Formats: sequence, C-alpha cells, structure tokens
Amino acid sequence: RAVLPGLINGHTHTAMTLFRGMVDDLDLMTWLNQYVFPMEGRFVTPEFVSTGTELACWEMIRGGTTTFVDMYFYPDQIAAVVDRCGLRAVVAAPHIDYPSPGFKGWDDSFAAARDFVNRWQGKHPRITPAFAPHAPYTVSPDHLQATVEAAGQSGALISMHLAEAPAETRHIMENYKTSPVKHVAGLGMYDLQLIAAHMVQLDEEDIAITAKAGVGAIHNPTSNMKLGAGISPVPAMLAAGVNVGLGTDGAASNNDLDMWEEVRMAALLHKVASGDPTALPAKQALSLATRSGAAAIRMDGKIGQLKPGMQADLIQLDLGKTRHQPLYDVTSHLVYMLDATDVTTTIVAGKVLMEDRQVTSINENELRASVNAAASEIRAALAAQKQGDQAQ
Amino acid sequence: RAVLPGLINGHTHTAMTLFRGMVDDLDLMTWLNQYVFPMEGRFVTPEFVSTGTELACWEMIRGGTTTFVDMYFYPDQIAAVVDRCGLRAVVAAPHIDYPSPGFKGWDDSFAAARDFVNRWQGKHPRITPAFAPHAPYTVSPDHLQATVEAAGQSGALISMHLAEAPAETRHIMENYKTSPVKHVAGLGMYDLQLIAAHMVQLDEEDIAITAKAGVGAIHNPTSNMKLGAGISPVPAMLAAGVNVGLGTDGAASNNDLDMWEEVRMAALLHKVASGDPTALPAKQALSLATRSGAAAIRMDGKIGQLKPGMQADLIQLDLGKTRHQPLYDVTSHLVYMLDATDVTTTIVAGKVLMEDRQVTSINENELRASVNAAASEIRAALAAQKQGDQAQ
Repeated sequence: RAVLPGLINGHTHTAMTLFRGMVDDLDLMTWLNQYVFPMEGRFVTPEFVSTGTELACWEMIRGGTTTFVDMYFYPDQIAAVVDRCGLRAVVAAPHIDYPSPGFKGWDDSFAAARDFVNRWQGKHPRITPAFAPHAPYTVSPDHLQATVEAAGQSGALISMHLAEAPAETRHIMENYKTSPVKHVAGLGMYDLQLIAAHMVQLDEEDIAITAKAGVGAIHNPTSNMKLGAGISPVPAMLAAGVNVGLGTDGAASNNDLDMWEEVRMAALLHKVASGDPTALPAKQALSLATRSGAAAIRMDGKIGQLKPGMQADLIQLDLGKTRHQPLYDVTSHLVYMLDATDVTTTIVAGKVLMEDRQVTSINENELRASVNAAASEIRAALAAQKQGDQAQ
Repeated sequence: RAVLPGLINGHTHTAMTLFRGMVDDLDLMTWLNQYVFPMEGRFVTPEFVSTGTELACWEMIRGGTTTFVDMYFYPDQIAAVVDRCGLRAVVAAPHIDYPSPGFKGWDDSFAAARDFVNRWQGKHPRITPAFAPHAPYTVSPDHLQATVEAAGQSGALISMHLAEAPAETRHIMENYKTSPVKHVAGLGMYDLQLIAAHMVQLDEEDIAITAKAGVGAIHNPTSNMKLGAGISPVPAMLAAGVNVGLGTDGAASNNDLDMWEEVRMAALLHKVASGDPTALPAKQALSLATRSGAAAIRMDGKIGQLKPGMQADLIQLDLGKTRHQPLYDVTSHLVYMLDATDVTTTIVAGKVLMEDRQVTSINENELRASVNAAASEIRAALAAQKQGDQAQ
C-alpha cells in the first residue's frame, strides 16, 4: 500500500454530475444553447445543487480527491455539503452578465457573490469562498473591475474560466484588440489571487506574464479534448515557472470526476502534442494534482505534500492487487495504471472520510434516492428535447 | 446490467505485461536500445512468455476483452495459454532481420513462423495463427516478399507494424523513395489478409489504397501518445471506408491492457486533434473495439456483434453502481465512464471465463507466484541498468 497527499481538483462544477452523459459529441454552441443552458435554467435549484454536489463529493472521496475548486450556482448549498461530507473546497460564487439560476443578471449575481464571500471568508477551516466572474467573454470589463475591487478589499480568491477556446480569443481580439490573458491582466485581475481555469489559448507573452504574476493555471485535459477546445501549453507554462494544477471540469464534459484519469491524460496528451515522449514525465504529471496543484489554488503552505505542518489530507492506495503486478516503479503505476478503485482510504484534516472503500460521511442509499428523483425529471425533459432535435 | 459483444484488442504483445512500468518517459531509442531489447534478450524464454501471456489473459478476461491479436516470441507458448484460459486470439509469429529471443536472424525466425502457421492453421476453434513480419524498417523487401508468398500459399493472416512513427517514414522514404504503406503494398502485402498496427503516418493516397485493399488498420491511441509517435488519421480512414480496429499495444508502452481506456482515448483524441467535438462520436468509438474491430482483424462474420450465427463472445456490465448515476444514455457511459471493473461476466464461445468478477479459467494465486518469480530477476537487472544510466 502507498500513502499519498490527497489529490486536488482545481476546477469543477460539481452539481453538474446530475447532467452526466446527458448529451455528448455535439458542437459547442449546440451543446450549450440547446442543452446545458436550458437544462440549467429549468432544473438548477438549491435542492438540485445539494444533491449534485453530494454525488460529486461521494465520487471524489471514493477517488482520492480531498480538495476541489468549485464554481456553480447556490454556493451556500455547496458549502453546506462540503461542511457535512468533510472535504476541503474553494467555493467560488458565480457572477455573469446574463440571467442565471436564481438571478436576473450581473447586478444581483455579483451582489450575492459579495455577500457569500463576506459571510464565509475566514469562517470555516475547510471552506474558502471565492469570486467567480464567469469568463472574459461573458463579463464586461467594468464588471470584471468591480470583481477586482471587491476581491482586493476582502483578500478573497478569484476563480474564472480564461483562454479556453479559439472563439473566446477571437471575441476578445475583435472587441479589445488583445489576448484574453492580457485583457484580464490589464483590468487588474493578475494583481490578485487568481485561479484561471483552462488556459489553452496562450502565446509566449501570456505565459510569461502568468508566471510573473503567480497566477494559478488549471489544466483540464479531458474536457479540453472532449469539447475540441485545443491543447494547453502545459510544458511551456511549467518551464516558465507557472503554477499549473489539474481539473476535471464538470461531469457534463468529462464525464466523471476521476483525477487519476486527468493525471494520466495530461502525461499522455503533452507527449503526443510535442512528439516528445520525455515531455511531462510521470512525477511532474502527478505533481499537477498534488504539490504544483496546491500552489495553483494558493494553498501550497497547507496541502499537496506530506510533511510536518501540513494538513492531514491523505489517501491510501492498494498497489498489491494482481493487476498492479509486476510493480517495478510506484510512480509509474500511480500515473499510468491507477484507477479510482485502487484508493482504499481517504482522510481530510485528520478525519477518515472513506475506509476500505466505504464512505463514512455520506449515506449512499439516501444519496441514490435523491439522485434518482432529480434524474427522472431531467430524463423526461431530455427525451422531449432530443425528439425535438431529431424532428428538425 | 448491459450485455455487449466482447471487446477486441487488435494489437498487443501480451507477455510484455512482465515489463509493465519497467521504465517510462524516455525517448524512443533509449527506451528500445537501453531497456526493451536488452531486457528481452536477457529474460524472454518460453517460461517468461507463458507467465506474461497468462497475466495478460487474466487482465483481459477481467476487463471484458474476448479476442486479441498477439505478436510476440514463442507463439506456441502463447497458443497453449490461450487454449487453456479460453480466450480467442490471432497468434502471430514474429520474424525479423535481426537476432531475437530464440533466433539468430531472419532465416530461422521465418522458418519457425512458417512451421507455426502450418501446424496451427485451421486446427483450433479459437486460435488463428498468423505471420508477423516485424515492420517495413526491420524486414527487407525480399524477406517481406517471402512472407507474402508463404501467407498467400497458406491463406494465413499477416499482422505487422506499419507507418507507426516519423523515423520509419524517413527511413522508408530515404531507402525506397515512397511511403511505408505504398512500400509494403508494392511488395504484395496489400493483396493479402493484412492487419496493420498503428497506421499513424498516412497521406491521402495511403488512406485510399488501404480502404480499397480492405486492409485492417489497428489504432493504438495510448501507445502512440505515450511514445509521442503522432496521431493516426482515424476519422479520415473511417470516412474512406477503412476497417479500423483498436489495440492497447504492449503493457510496456501503455501500461495496461484496458480496452475501455482505448475506446475513450480514441473518442477524446480525435476531437482535440481536429478541433471538432463531433468527431468520432461514442457509438463509432465503441465500434472500433467491436464491429469495426472485428472487420479489421478479418473476423466480421464471427465476432463483434450480438446476433444469430455469431460466436457467443459476450460480456455483462454493471451500470447500476452509484458512480454510474444518473444514467441517461448507456452508450455515453460505455465510452466516457466505463472502467474494466464494471465488467461482471466474460463469456467466450459460450464458456464462462469470469463470473461475478471471479476468473474461472486461471488460478490467480499460482499466476501471482509465477509473476513474482519472473519479476524479482527483472527487478534486480533493472536496478543495475538504471544505476548504470545515472552514472553516465
């Protein structure tokens, strides 16, 4: 058996587990406009978020993830689930210039985010609130500056989507004559504690200013591949000194929250992208989910390593199974072999959340009943939507 | 629970499970010349192949693979294990212009391959012998023509590495002024029942002649990524009508034999390679390991589908687990969620090889003892080799 610091999922939308496998293999605009946004508008309630977040936490505990950065609606519900289930999380409250579940637009969503951060900042040992302006193409420069001002005053983290896909780059270039990274840096975002998710569309200058600012870059290999977004310049960012972390993104574009798959995917993707089999070696890939990932989400003094003074966030792995034989090099198996099912024990802040594959802090039967209730309504709406699409 | 035809692993070197995780993240030439070839020369014996093949068969039965195409030394040992454990296999006997385990060079390795094919052709309901000329850069044109003649006479299949990496393309271009595909097609290889592994380096003309010839192309996404070989033009091959299958390659470059990972990897890789999230949709990706894969290995009348007249090669999957909730679309979960551990039952030719996750045809304790014995010698040699490398 091996002991490791718990893995860090640097970017996800946990409650979207309830949209897992809802629809795949569509172009981005059809996926978002025909499915994700209408389904969110119709189904995302505080209850939905509680159930979806709990399902995600159950999956993360089972897979050895001990800390995650969440960005989804109804952050108070998310925080309540995190408190109960024992994981560690950055809970980022979304604000966006468009209507979203519970909000008419930017004014009320930003006010709610400020309120959320004020109420939670420094209040809970495992929960860190953050601002989540959605993305540079969905939040205006004025509104991004309002976030900068509020986060600057409170010292809170910011989590946002940045430089994800070519369409974003084109939009920012057309409207502001610069790159997404330089656009938000110019608005003061890079002077704060920013955790930037995706970071695919970066030029050399973007990489240099990201490194210099100490901004955390969260790489989401499976999601970027599935949505055809592109390949993040991870080896170049690491070489420049950027703190790179790893994330699963939401289950709607993954379709699970398995960080071992992300570690392996990162190690493989950057080899084929560069044509260099020595790119992102196993140890470095694993670090993206542990030590480097902790730095990326601004918790490097606290988690991501096993040493005195750090939080007791750790996992135990069973490498004794026949499928792990022969075993010449533990790191090789951690990266190129490990499945979530190899995790036997998950501990956060010294508390055992799973022992011998049994999650102790979540009642699985009650969870399944809630998930089934939510899913049956979604299933019916989905069938109607797919029928409509086929009829067109 | 879902029932599916068993998966087809179209290209592997099963006994290399004993080299699993031996060394990773090296450039191809160091990997081959410092580790793979010397270790093979030193350790690969009939006993090694029996043990390594049995470990691979155990893993494949557990993961729902029911048919595989093997290419490794001591094919009689491989066939004996396949006979015992109940799987279905194409066992291809390697011949190569260099010394290899048991042989001085081409003459004796080719003679042994002919002998193997003659002895096994049409003799066993689950074992199909084949010729395995290693690759166009390791077997001379004269020798490839000798294989063509022998395979033509016996009607046997041929399995070979083809168009895997840029170095091969350069070598063939320099020596024969053509592409690897056109080189072997010109030698008559494309007039026979060829199963070509890798097929990364193809131009439009190569794709067209491959489709016309009905040659099976086996895509090995994880191996190609890990070795930085490049991205096979799978969507273009499928559009042209090529029968494309999927393979894991050997465990030394993967590092397991999990076909679910290959299906998922193929679906994700071709989306990011093309920037098109509609590329290689779930159903098509799954077909590479079932219906299309069966055609690629020339068994489309026999396996790869569940319908009357086909062999009873089937698997049962548990999609009732909490981690598969909610479940809106079974195909989505088969491709984007499934793990080998979700397979509950594996049946080949009507015989149950695994029930409730218990493999019935292999004694796991005896297998582990054999694996441990082989691994302890390899471990010692590996430590010496790695120490030597670091000292340099």
